[in-house]
Amino acid sequence: MDALVERLRTGLPAEALVTDPDVTASYAHDMASFCEAGTPAVVVLPRTVEEVQHVMRTATALRVPVVPQGARTGLSGAANATDGCIVLSLVKMDRILEISPVDRIAVVEPGVVNATLSRAVGEHGLCYPPDPSSWETCTIGGNIGTASGGLCCVKYGVTAEYVLGLEVVLADGRLLNTGRRTAKGVAGYDLTRLFVGSEGSLGIVVKAVLALRPQPPRQLVLAAEFPSAATACDAVCRIMERGHTPSLLELMDRTTVRAVNAMTSMGLPESTEALLLCAFDTPDPAADLAAVGELCTAAGATEVVPAQDTAESELLLQARRLSLPALETVKPATMIDDVCVPRSRLGAMLEGTAAVAEKFGLTIGVCAHAGDGNTHPVVCFDHTDPDESRRARASFDEIMALGLELGGTITGEHGVGVLKKEWLARELGEVGVEVQRGVKAAFDPLGLLNPGKLF
Amino acid sequence: MDALVERLRTGLPAEALVTDPDVTASYAHDMASFCEAGTPAVVVLPRTVEEVQHVMRTATALRVPVVPQGARTGLSGAANATDGCIVLSLVKMDRILEISPVDRIAVVEPGVVNATLSRAVGEHGLCYPPDPSSWETCTIGGNIGTASGGLCCVKYGVTAEYVLGLEVVLADGRLLNTGRRTAKGVAGYDLTRLFVGSEGSLGIVVKAVLALRPQPPRQLVLAAEFPSAATACDAVCRIMERGHTPSLLELMDRTTVRAVNAMTSMGLPESTEALLLCAFDTPDPAADLAAVGELCTAAGATEVVPAQDTAESELLLQARRLSLPALETVKPATMIDDVCVPRSRLGAMLEGTAAVAEKFGLTIGVCAHAGDGNTHPVVCFDHTDPDESRRARASFDEIMALGLELGGTITGEHGVGVLKKEWLARELGEVGVEVQRGVKAAFDPLGLLNPGKLF
Repeated sequence: MDALVERLRTGLPAEALVTDPDVTASYAHDMASFCEAGTPAVVVLPRTVEEVQHVMRTATALRVPVVPQGARTGLSGAANATDGCIVLSLVKMDRILEISPVDRIAVVEPGVVNATLSRAVGEHGLCYPPDPSSWETCTIGGNIGTASGGLCCVKYGVTAEYVLGLEVVLADGRLLNTGRRTAKGVAGYDLTRLFVGSEGSLGIVVKAVLALRPQPPRQLVLAAEFPSAATACDAVCRIMERGHTPSLLELMDRTTVRAVNAMTSMGLPESTEALLLCAFDTPDPAADLAAVGELCTAAGATEVVPAQDTAESELLLQARRLSLPALETVKPATMIDDVCVPRSRLGAMLEGTAAVAEKFGLTIGVCAHAGDGNTHPVVCFDHTDPDESRRARASFDEIMALGLELGGTITGEHGVGVLKKEWLARELGEVGVEVQRGVKAAFDPLGLLNPGKLF
Repeated sequence: MDALVERLRTGLPAEALVTDPDVTASYAHDMASFCEAGTPAVVVLPRTVEEVQHVMRTATALRVPVVPQGARTGLSGAANATDGCIVLSLVKMDRILEISPVDRIAVVEPGVVNATLSRAVGEHGLCYPPDPSSWETCTIGGNIGTASGGLCCVKYGVTAEYVLGLEVVLADGRLLNTGRRTAKGVAGYDLTRLFVGSEGSLGIVVKAVLALRPQPPRQLVLAAEFPSAATACDAVCRIMERGHTPSLLELMDRTTVRAVNAMTSMGLPESTEALLLCAFDTPDPAADLAAVGELCTAAGATEVVPAQDTAESELLLQARRLSLPALETVKPATMIDDVCVPRSRLGAMLEGTAAVAEKFGLTIGVCAHAGDGNTHPVVCFDHTDPDESRRARASFDEIMALGLELGGTITGEHGVGVLKKEWLARELGEVGVEVQRGVKAAFDPLGLLNPGKLF
């Protein structure tokens, strides 16, 4: 370890190197529950591409594993340290290098916080859509690593769709440029997209060219109460089948609604079995909401309440955003799942999740990016109770199995990390894992980049 | 070769195997000019996944190269045969397996013709946006192989954005599933996108899950005449900078306009130096066109003519679609380039292209997906004149060099194939090529899949 620190020191300023074990320990893991994390040997916080190259050359020379990190807001343990590793935190590389309204791109370093970028491009009348719920703290580099989503995806897509080009430091320190800063381009394999969602296992992103969009009008939200999850999901299908393009289509189940009320006194309707939130940022959102309201009523909604203005809309969105924090107050611990199914199977997914909760005698609240079929079943349990912990883990697994059965995926936006490793193999199948391992080996033959994640 | 045919015969019906040299010769190349093409040993036309697996197992066992083909409408020689290869034509695998309006997906075999799919999903009120100019004949498999674009990209993006999942036969015959049929999903590396645009060099796509969109309203088109390419490009920048989202934003230079008139007697304005076509498929396209018309006038347009109805709009689009065929009548031969630059550099690109034409004493007509910065300079020349041919090739190269200088790419949508191999290496750089070769080797260690293409 001394040799490692000495060598790192030759290419890093003193303040970029942290060896105090009390401090390095605080970099051990992200926000995922119940994921193993090791003890880092050292934490480095480079500010330049050259410093990152030095770190990777050192790691390769000494065969030391490297765990890249952003703000550690991830939910799958993908940023968790392994024993003796270099934690490579990119948070100090936080400059917005360029914003071009004509080309509709931004060029940024990986440590830029999502909200900082969103506000900066907003001043140019532009918008960077991906909005994970951690957007006030998470970094663009982390978003790229996990290919994160958010509330806007149903209309605007996920992080992957906004990454045009990357600058990447490879495992051995070489610098790779991928992609482009043009609107289109097909020169060679799409390595940009390969890096997006690779959880730091193929290289270190040190710069990104991001696509921007014109800022849409403020969205207007409608809330609809349903007597069952099935009727709410039926409404979701009707809305999408009729060709509507909502800017948001979210579902909160009764457990979630009650948890939000308990935490915030928001006064959401407690008698509803499922609350659907639908929004439009179209030229005439009120007209679109009226049409959607009729579809909701036809599907069985007992109450349909369009917000009168953006303030009311914001309040409803706030309720949705507080769903996870609120569910975390239900029991001492939670496990947040992230199963995405074809939206036509959303009803079956919610029904099946309720059956899992009943089978294991657990509280499982569900909030969902319903328009995308992306559910977040939150298993609430007491981690000091061994039996309840066991049942929680078992239910978590059954929910993923259910998702796969319904033609879905084990992760819509949170990633695999260490949390879902075994399940990734189940989803990909034998050939899939073999091929993915072959790709990994092509980039990182020594297996130094974020080892033990994904597979 | 007899051994090859004998072995292929054991797993293919007689009609799927073509050995008559007169017939196999007709499969030797795609629509690219001046690209080398070899003589295939045999052409196979499988109808099932198992037959494709049999072909690939045979190829691997006998170490015979395989060149996958769709409709051979490509413009870079990516589908050109190599000597002694198996041409693997996917055109008989042409079934649309599923269309789901709720999930907004289609599941198709690779031989489905783009226009056939577009019409089929249109009957469900859905739309498959990618619309390369060969859309009436090109196949979805070919579109995936080249990651093709079209007129709609400025608003709706390219093929890559519509491919959610793939079934791929690998070089050794194993079957790989990538991606998903859900709206979102981040389980493992994004291999789907790696295959899109890989020109058949990583595996054989035998099934694709495609994303669909609701059918937009019919678009309304405006034509604006400009006294120079510079003023037209300035208008393009203003339109995009102001946050407009046209469904089409195309440019035809004077040479192109005159060529179209000569071929069709359409009566386009011959005095214009650049004709800009802009369309909207928004709820109120006339209002959007009025706003864009003002921006065009402010940028220096001498005439701004909005179409009065969809018939007039269609006529203008027809003029644009006929640009390439019309330019092909100017001289006995053409080379079509495909350079994409940041749209802020479009003016410099057009100016530079005109300078190249003058330098080499050639006619180079330019039509462009202006909103994307994607230009198609068409070098018109007499291929029977050795000196003119030499100048044509030299000008083609200088146009690519110019594109790279301006921060662009050598190919926005046509691909690399054999036509731009040397230029791909120039764009990617040494590290880029090394990494791309590493990826290729991970999928195809024997180098049997479409050898000699890309790099």
